[in-house]
Amino acid sequence: MTVSDLSERELISRLRRQLPPAPPWMTVGIGDDAAVVETVRNELDVFTVDAIVEGVHFDRRFTPPEAIGHRALAVNLSDLAAMGATPRLALLSLALPASLPADEFDAMIGGLAALALKHNLHVAGGNLTRSSGPLVVDVTAVGTIKRRGVLTRAGARAGDEIYVTGSVGGARAGLQYLQLGTPDEGMAPAAQRFLYPEPRVRAGLLLGRNRAATACMDLSDGLADAVRQVAEASGVGARLDAAALPVDPETRRWFASRRADVVAEVLTGGDDYELMFTVSRKLRGRLRTVARHAGVPLTRIGVCTPERDLCISGTFEGQTVDAPLPHGFSHFR
Amino acid sequence: MTVSDLSERELISRLRRQLPPAPPWMTVGIGDDAAVVETVRNELDVFTVDAIVEGVHFDRRFTPPEAIGHRALAVNLSDLAAMGATPRLALLSLALPASLPADEFDAMIGGLAALALKHNLHVAGGNLTRSSGPLVVDVTAVGTIKRRGVLTRAGARAGDEIYVTGSVGGARAGLQYLQLGTPDEGMAPAAQRFLYPEPRVRAGLLLGRNRAATACMDLSDGLADAVRQVAEASGVGARLDAAALPVDPETRRWFASRRADVVAEVLTGGDDYELMFTVSRKLRGRLRTVARHAGVPLTRIGVCTPERDLCISGTFEGQTVDAPLPHGFSHFR
Repeated sequence: MTVSDLSERELISRLRRQLPPAPPWMTVGIGDDAAVVETVRNELDVFTVDAIVEGVHFDRRFTPPEAIGHRALAVNLSDLAAMGATPRLALLSLALPASLPADEFDAMIGGLAALALKHNLHVAGGNLTRSSGPLVVDVTAVGTIKRRGVLTRAGARAGDEIYVTGSVGGARAGLQYLQLGTPDEGMAPAAQRFLYPEPRVRAGLLLGRNRAATACMDLSDGLADAVRQVAEASGVGARLDAAALPVDPETRRWFASRRADVVAEVLTGGDDYELMFTVSRKLRGRLRTVARHAGVPLTRIGVCTPERDLCISGTFEGQTVDAPLPHGFSHFR
Repeated sequence: MTVSDLSERELISRLRRQLPPAPPWMTVGIGDDAAVVETVRNELDVFTVDAIVEGVHFDRRFTPPEAIGHRALAVNLSDLAAMGATPRLALLSLALPASLPADEFDAMIGGLAALALKHNLHVAGGNLTRSSGPLVVDVTAVGTIKRRGVLTRAGARAGDEIYVTGSVGGARAGLQYLQLGTPDEGMAPAAQRFLYPEPRVRAGLLLGRNRAATACMDLSDGLADAVRQVAEASGVGARLDAAALPVDPETRRWFASRRADVVAEVLTGGDDYELMFTVSRKLRGRLRTVARHAGVPLTRIGVCTPERDLCISGTFEGQTVDAPLPHGFSHFR
């Protein structure tokens, strides 16, 4: 049975079966022309939208439907995290090819619903339509934030130190491994990392609430791209320390075995969904508080400079690096 | 030049050039990980999302890019109107085929921006990605509403009268005319109606504010579908009067010349984006106030009944009608 054997109403009913009941702040929920929601007193609304498209962002041959649903929400949660926001609700807009099996539809919703539950986010509505081509999963996520906790890209100052959550490069290694299709048990964690990225919601929230960071951005298009965007928005330069890059052992091994330039792969590999942020040296004390509760390691990887150029230097696994920062990944060029 | 000759940043910059400056309630606008927005005191947020997909909702052979942009926003404004909400902001998520000419991209944004300006709605952010197939334009619209002005589908009671704004069937006639491709000057208004639907934002807002309507829904999937949905949600039946259906002369002529069943076409034709609403007989006075300022005719077309069946009777252009309401249009079955 495929989705084309079902009416829109039947599909919505299958979707709703996987969602918890509406919270009390939903005045009008799924099933009307639009959702009506109470605002949170003294907080601002935060809005983000991101689509993932079959053949561009995922390949159904090696991406289970649960992972598609997970990713569609995770990329949006990552954007909320980068602002320091608390996730609140999401709207789904799905364009479904007629050939999509109904159980894959259910599994996709299941992957999304599981991540939503974990972050206490409510699916408040959406739209289902047929696609004349690829599967497209578009998610709008709404969060809330106190005005003093907003993290933009523009607040970094020369002398601020540059940090990143978790580790980098793992998602690209995992994707390459999945594309190759040769079993390798050691690569299972990297594959998992690519398939089920973990948005750093708690870390972002703590960085904003504690006013520990001067700027923040997520790594959706790679570390080099994030450093470049924050530096440009803030009017500073950046110097990264190659020796400090947090790269998992299996990721190092993977790129080395393929004779790839590990540093370049790690800087330009997208899909990691970690946070890159800057911290004033005076605020290191606040950062220690964040580090204790963020649930993910925070690593200092460089410094913002008054000169506007972007570079990386130092030694990474015996390789001496001294180069301008490469450009990130772009879905257009 | 196509969109694939441009970077995401260049496309965003072309898009921004067509938008007015951000209003003061935008704390963080386009260019960061997410948009941050002040809420409106004592009002609720209203959220809706709708995607239009090339080959499903529009055909680029006869739909100018301005009309694609217009429609993508209009369908969402129509959903806000059906709740009685005031439009506030929109997020765009575009999946662009590499072959899309850059000037068509600009024209599409222009069509959307013109409608946004007309309704005082601000484009607050979005997402651009490549599509591996059709052009997909996904819009999330956010409005605000006072709690006492919310119009749901569920408030109709037996005895309430059923109304519709504007006229019905014109969009289907216009679409059929465009698909046929034979020039016919008399059909230009219907074609325009299909290409540039006018969401009934003011009418919806007044119906909510004046508490004139007991239930409301837009006609995106046709009049019969809207009557069915409101009746089901409200637990009533409905009897429509065929003689009262507001059908434009060129629409009548079009369907008659094609030997089509005009009443059936008008009941099931989608894309009209009018509002169907119900009014308690006691509140007719309030409706008169709405009618004076709505900027569109309001026509009484039937009544809600205690019996749960849905039917249409009466005489339409000499044709006697006495039948159950047909089912509406579905993008899945």
